[in-house]
Amino acid sequence: MPVNLRVPRPDELRSVAGVALGHAEAGIRKPGRKDLLVMRLAEGSAVAGVFTRNRFCAAPVLVCQEHLAAAPGIRALVINTGNANAGTGGPGLADARQTCARLAALLDLAPNQVLPFSTGVIMEPLPLERLLAGLPQALARLRPDGWFDAAHAIMTTDTLPKAASRGLMLDGRQVAVTGIAKGAGMIKPNMATMLGFVATDAAVKPALLQALVRDVADQSFNCVTVDGDTSTNDSFVLIASGASGMAPIASAADPRFAPLREALVAVARELAQAIVRDGEGATKFIEIRVEGAGSREEARQVGYAIAHSPLVKTAFFASDPNLGRILAAVGNSGIADLDAGRVQLHLNDVWVARDGGRHPDYREEDGQRVMKGAEILVRVELGRGGAEACLWTCDFSHEYVSINADYRS
Amino acid sequence: MPVNLRVPRPDELRSVAGVALGHAEAGIRKPGRKDLLVMRLAEGSAVAGVFTRNRFCAAPVLVCQEHLAAAPGIRALVINTGNANAGTGGPGLADARQTCARLAALLDLAPNQVLPFSTGVIMEPLPLERLLAGLPQALARLRPDGWFDAAHAIMTTDTLPKAASRGLMLDGRQVAVTGIAKGAGMIKPNMATMLGFVATDAAVKPALLQALVRDVADQSFNCVTVDGDTSTNDSFVLIASGASGMAPIASAADPRFAPLREALVAVARELAQAIVRDGEGATKFIEIRVEGAGSREEARQVGYAIAHSPLVKTAFFASDPNLGRILAAVGNSGIADLDAGRVQLHLNDVWVARDGGRHPDYREEDGQRVMKGAEILVRVELGRGGAEACLWTCDFSHEYVSINADYRS
Repeated sequence: MPVNLRVPRPDELRSVAGVALGHAEAGIRKPGRKDLLVMRLAEGSAVAGVFTRNRFCAAPVLVCQEHLAAAPGIRALVINTGNANAGTGGPGLADARQTCARLAALLDLAPNQVLPFSTGVIMEPLPLERLLAGLPQALARLRPDGWFDAAHAIMTTDTLPKAASRGLMLDGRQVAVTGIAKGAGMIKPNMATMLGFVATDAAVKPALLQALVRDVADQSFNCVTVDGDTSTNDSFVLIASGASGMAPIASAADPRFAPLREALVAVARELAQAIVRDGEGATKFIEIRVEGAGSREEARQVGYAIAHSPLVKTAFFASDPNLGRILAAVGNSGIADLDAGRVQLHLNDVWVARDGGRHPDYREEDGQRVMKGAEILVRVELGRGGAEACLWTCDFSHEYVSINADYRS
Repeated sequence: MPVNLRVPRPDELRSVAGVALGHAEAGIRKPGRKDLLVMRLAEGSAVAGVFTRNRFCAAPVLVCQEHLAAAPGIRALVINTGNANAGTGGPGLADARQTCARLAALLDLAPNQVLPFSTGVIMEPLPLERLLAGLPQALARLRPDGWFDAAHAIMTTDTLPKAASRGLMLDGRQVAVTGIAKGAGMIKPNMATMLGFVATDAAVKPALLQALVRDVADQSFNCVTVDGDTSTNDSFVLIASGASGMAPIASAADPRFAPLREALVAVARELAQAIVRDGEGATKFIEIRVEGAGSREEARQVGYAIAHSPLVKTAFFASDPNLGRILAAVGNSGIADLDAGRVQLHLNDVWVARDGGRHPDYREEDGQRVMKGAEILVRVELGRGGAEACLWTCDFSHEYVSINADYRS
């Protein structure tokens, strides 16, 4: 049961000029499911991506990085679900290349103008023939308003599709920012997330777009975790088709940069939070804010220690204010010189621990009240400096175990 | 349901000359449970301990370290369950000191000759009066063959008591090594475990015993993990009463050192593995061996990444050979220059992944057969060097969530 996750209506997802989307039911893993997506981009589109740091990164991730580095002008993306094409060695790499080659031939492009993405089970051979056979159907369905179906076509254990959209005016022109993402488990993005695609018809120079994709990922997908497992296939791609007709933005000093960045971060953050809200078995949406840290990295380290503790996560599931577990997680976060006596813990408006111990005024009923809510803010103050960080996560339920014990069956 | 965990018969637990044990039902958390233990040590006993590195370490841990540093000759240990006395600030520290003072008064000792230990819920005030009121009952029951009851008296979420014993001949004298431990959740010892106490009537000089306690912990408790949460109260204590009458062992070169160490490691390892076998909700006992690593630390890092992955642990629970999740965990272990193409993965006798990808001869039925067993060996070869490490862990089941969602109710 997703936590307060609203699915936008199809008409709320603005089309992005220069981007068309088409899906197919290719039967990659199971028949009759939308499991293949093609995105076709207008000539001149700028494309930038960030990818998983898992050392077992999937074959399509390797091919994406190669094609982006070759910089021939990316013109199409192809995404399959049902199989991650990871841990598949040389044959998996050949499969990813063949996928690009076939789509390129169908669209009259060079193979390295295509980016491939896969998500699903790891270490099983990609059913290449079924994938290739599905491409013509996807191409026949290409349309600018295909975002809603596209969001469905990239789902795996997601219970709901994830899409977000914003509009803004730049240079007196209406510009759209629309994105989709998938992911519910194996979620602790490191540089990016499972799969996220955000497109705008604003024009952005490639070098600036590359900086922007990292920045946006750091503000969004890199702040969520479900189970602490960084996937082999994490990919986040930003597309600026430029088809709105505006002159390209070349630097962060351009007055149009800030509003565009804001819209991009808003869309990416909504998608990232949607992944947590739909986290496998999630019943709570939890924001963890760590303040007073010596550095942002340190704040994130403490945040992850809390967000990944099975004991903390099961206590949230139970709505049990067993909040000493949060202190234990903070103490367990690997900061060797942490002074426990300076740590403060708040849950929403309730001051739980003062100077490292239970606050004398803290009453269990107050903790209980907060824990029963579906949206909880955990705020930890370390008393070490001025840096802070924010993470979003969910609880850990029976349903998580069920989903992951039954995933392949 | 513990995994192949055999509880020794009371008569299999050798008494250790110079050590007497007595328990009480003090009603610390719930009435009618054995929840308080006193261990009285003969004069001249050497005592050494290692303690949690969690920065929120509990009040009794701080007092233990203080009393051991003062080195006045430790003569008694007092252990309560039902309350961890952690995250309790100044009042918690005062409670731990008062516990020592009262027991010292009853035994005619100085307060700093007593070591206190607590385990249970974090961040709740210690019910000191009930604890103190239970001490006379525990003292009235002091006896050398109290090990079996003692193992019961320190249990919290443990479903079975944990005790182990060995005998050996040193200098023609019969020497005993007997120990008890508790722990089932919040288990990823860092220097020590939840609570472990091993005693021998061999004589060992204090400086050597201090080196030995670290060594033994590294070979036993520091190799187990249930959920990756390092407790606030981890303590492992080694006692050498010397009451066998032998001349003290002063150096590792002493010919009596090696056999004694071997017996101590055997007892500690049996206790540590018992904690995993009784891990909260455990249905499988899993040994993770990482070989071909650049260093022991690196091997342990990879082992923990596997052992802590909720996706790997739920796959074990389901007996699902979804073994790509193990590769993903290896890739996610934080070794930046890991070459995935050199990684080999075996499950028991089955070669699953060769050179980073699925082994061409690997058949799902073979993986399935191994996964269905209750004892599984995961062997990962990294191809980076000659170092290796071994960890013991368990799977992640519905029962784990139930236990931790209901722990305090």
